[in-house]
Amino acid sequence: MSIQKINLSEKFKTFDDPWHPRIVGRLNGQEVKIARLKGEFVWHKHDHEDEMFLVISGTLKMELEDKTLVLEEGEFVIIPKGTLHRPVADEEVKVMLFEPAGTLNTGDAGGELTRNEIEEI
Amino acid sequence: MSIQKINLSEKFKTFDDPWHPRIVGRLNGQEVKIARLKGEFVWHKHDHEDEMFLVISGTLKMELEDKTLVLEEGEFVIIPKGTLHRPVADEEVKVMLFEPAGTLNTGDAGGELTRNEIEEI
Repeated sequence: MSIQKINLSEKFKTFDDPWHPRIVGRLNGQEVKIARLKGEFVWHKHDHEDEMFLVISGTLKMELEDKTLVLEEGEFVIIPKGTLHRPVADEEVKVMLFEPAGTLNTGDAGGELTRNEIEEI
Repeated sequence: MSIQKINLSEKFKTFDDPWHPRIVGRLNGQEVKIARLKGEFVWHKHDHEDEMFLVISGTLKMELEDKTLVLEEGEFVIIPKGTLHRPVADEEVKVMLFEPAGTLNTGDAGGELTRNEIEEI
């Protein structure tokens, strides 16, 4: 396929369900995903993957065991592998994620929010 | 080091020289870099690394062999390994880059724009 640019706003318009990431790019064994977050996610960790959250819009609370980071648009955090974390969004937040291909959204926690099939859009 | 959030605007304020990327994050063997682009870069390719350019502000022209992509804020492109490309910025552009650790900015081209030492800021 020829090389195309990706417009994040256009991609976000194609879905509206929260906690359901979509793949928008792949490179070097990593995936670029976008997701809408709304409400409280589950506490979880990824044993083998570092995970980056870049806030595209909204205010994201990233709860860690010892503190909570509050991220606004244009801010990101890298959660190292093995680190317990819980994303919380009082109002809807749009994020871009960068993580190894196949990273499971709920990490070691499982449960009903787990998305085993992540579509590329 | 404890986990901290990164504010892209704050990081951009710490330098103003174009074509000189800085590292703002590391994960999974990859680096997150930011750079100011102004003018014409050199045609080059990366034999072993895919490279992602996300436009934070400005208008980036990404010249490829068969076309030119014009990227605005909130748009990104992934340049697959081995693909000749040349970034051009008529006015200053701020970008975020994702690529494997150690990727050389000028790829196979070398020359005076090459930055062998990339600082983490």
